[in-house]
Amino acid sequence: MQSKPNIVVSSLDLDRLEALLAATPERGFPGKAALQAELDRADVREPADMPSDVVTMNSTVRFQLQDSGESFEQTLVYPKDADGSGERISILAPVGSALLGLKVGDTIEWPGPGGKPLAVRIVAIVYQPERAGELHR
Amino acid sequence: MQSKPNIVVSSLDLDRLEALLAATPERGFPGKAALQAELDRADVREPADMPSDVVTMNSTVRFQLQDSGESFEQTLVYPKDADGSGERISILAPVGSALLGLKVGDTIEWPGPGGKPLAVRIVAIVYQPERAGELHR
Repeated sequence: MQSKPNIVVSSLDLDRLEALLAATPERGFPGKAALQAELDRADVREPADMPSDVVTMNSTVRFQLQDSGESFEQTLVYPKDADGSGERISILAPVGSALLGLKVGDTIEWPGPGGKPLAVRIVAIVYQPERAGELHR
Repeated sequence: MQSKPNIVVSSLDLDRLEALLAATPERGFPGKAALQAELDRADVREPADMPSDVVTMNSTVRFQLQDSGESFEQTLVYPKDADGSGERISILAPVGSALLGLKVGDTIEWPGPGGKPLAVRIVAIVYQPERAGELHR
């Protein structure tokens, strides 16, 4: 079992995510129980006290594919704000829930075409609402 | 490097996916080059000749989480048909492109909350357009 530090979550995101989870059936969201467990043990901070290098809701994250060096950006959003463009990722989508609370420098592996793993590194938080002073976004 | 067999793709899905990729900028889709490479070497069949246990576009797939035994369903869709519900997954989303051409019994790992890997097995193709005789869907 991989050991990971607790994720850091803002109190506002926590409140909204708990309301979302309460309204979402398990069959609609693989890993609902796992996200609830992460939130239960998260390091919760006031929005103004969030570290600036952590992925929060509505943050735009720049990733880099380890193999190709290709970089791309995705914004972690609530389901109501998701589209299919690939530039916004819902917290209820596979991988989406993995991003919350990760930090610049963290690497995750997700399955790519043909089921082959893609190693993907977080290289920057391009936009973070809390850092931008948007504490109620 | 993991060795995987070529994916099986219908000629109709292939045509539509190539048009989609031509219209999608690389920064909007991590793994665009990887999907193109998979399509280039795919085993292409007429829609009527698709094996019934393979994930095609608009197929509804039943998964099971290895750890919890929890099962859930997702439908692999084109971006225009995606929503943020978690029940439809865009071919341009992380993990989405991994599903195309996989078979019942295949297992993939995707990152879950806190970045912890979730092992997820395809246990059934609940609906496959080709199997249902919807050869132009």
